[in-house]
Amino acid sequence: MARFFVAASNIFGGIAYLNGEDLDHIKALRIRDGEMFTVCDGEGTDYSCVLSKVDRDTAEVQILDKAPSKGEPTVNCTVYMAYAKGDKIEHVVQKAVELGASEIVLFPSKRCVSRPEGAAIIKKTARYSKIAEEAAKQCGRGRIPTVTTAPNYKTAIELASKADMPLFCYEDEKELSIRTCLEASPDMKTVSIVTGPEGGFEPEEAALAIDMGMKCVTMGTRILRCETAPLCALTAVMYSTGNL
Amino acid sequence: MARFFVAASNIFGGIAYLNGEDLDHIKALRIRDGEMFTVCDGEGTDYSCVLSKVDRDTAEVQILDKAPSKGEPTVNCTVYMAYAKGDKIEHVVQKAVELGASEIVLFPSKRCVSRPEGAAIIKKTARYSKIAEEAAKQCGRGRIPTVTTAPNYKTAIELASKADMPLFCYEDEKELSIRTCLEASPDMKTVSIVTGPEGGFEPEEAALAIDMGMKCVTMGTRILRCETAPLCALTAVMYSTGNL
Repeated sequence: MARFFVAASNIFGGIAYLNGEDLDHIKALRIRDGEMFTVCDGEGTDYSCVLSKVDRDTAEVQILDKAPSKGEPTVNCTVYMAYAKGDKIEHVVQKAVELGASEIVLFPSKRCVSRPEGAAIIKKTARYSKIAEEAAKQCGRGRIPTVTTAPNYKTAIELASKADMPLFCYEDEKELSIRTCLEASPDMKTVSIVTGPEGGFEPEEAALAIDMGMKCVTMGTRILRCETAPLCALTAVMYSTGNL
Repeated sequence: MARFFVAASNIFGGIAYLNGEDLDHIKALRIRDGEMFTVCDGEGTDYSCVLSKVDRDTAEVQILDKAPSKGEPTVNCTVYMAYAKGDKIEHVVQKAVELGASEIVLFPSKRCVSRPEGAAIIKKTARYSKIAEEAAKQCGRGRIPTVTTAPNYKTAIELASKADMPLFCYEDEKELSIRTCLEASPDMKTVSIVTGPEGGFEPEEAALAIDMGMKCVTMGTRILRCETAPLCALTAVMYSTGNL
């Protein structure tokens, strides 16, 4: 079923008002009279709708029913990913949204080969946000996860360390597994996952993270690529919290 | 550390013999005298080696130590993936090897848009096998997972249904979660994961799978893409069996 995100302020009096790209999309889909589709306010509510009127600038859609969005997990999990080369970030953003991440934060670290700055960051983040929105529509999320950037490594870790379960995925950690860590805290409400760039983290970066309260974990004996690690950790979080 | 797969028959008398692409690779890496690297026999044993002699056709490497490969999971999990468009199969093969799959089997199903045949299958499978080998080297596996094809849907399901835990991932299943299913059988040794093409499975395909003994499971309320589902299920299997 087609799915649109509409700002809550454009939903009132039993009608949702769509414009801009959503209007173009509604026209392109050639939605028929009486055909049901979903409008989501991006704040956790889904509305079952039919089209009532389309003109040049606006589509008015009639709301028949509403219900909490089913696509939101019960845990709030933020993915902190170091900048990576090529299309790896696009890939992780798309899949992390599908797998239930609530937010994606990008940050620089010492071994990052790619390290966008200034205008490039703004342009790229806008593209990643668009990818997150498309993925949220496609997979049936009730919110659109944000994609933001941290100005430096320390700020990223400071933010990440505030979660109930702050996970730092580190290939040189050999003892504490992500599973052991997650199973020790069944009641966590917020989780952060920090993963490194292609070459991994420097030992002093890991030391700083531990100092700041992060839990250093391993995801087994195989070396995961920088685009595989965040999605593996996110899946582990969703599994352990009953969201899979 | 560099890693090479060498047939067990080329390892004897405390020496491993490398040739062909591996020889080219050893030369390209400019491995220095005394520099350690790993040779794996692809049957679960890793050898710590140093280079002893290189000539035009062969490199002789001296074995200093041997140990079971650490990169093999304790569970044998085969991923059965329906043919998919674009580079999705390449992507899944690479990540599935990293995440610990023991085998990848491709198969056609009713809604497959891509459905290679004859010579195209042979060519593509050779490429996928190469990707599996590269991924196995990179992530430190002790075996190279095979990539094969099943001639039709029924054969794929027949093979898959023989596992201790035969999982059929189906978006229209609303009750039984993959977690509930996995936690009911902590002692499983073999698992199969079957996932569909872009448009999902037809209801009669799901019915046939259930008839043949597959367990129909859901991975939550979000609709996962055809390249996300197998990796999500595989991560769940590795998590539940203590391999993460």
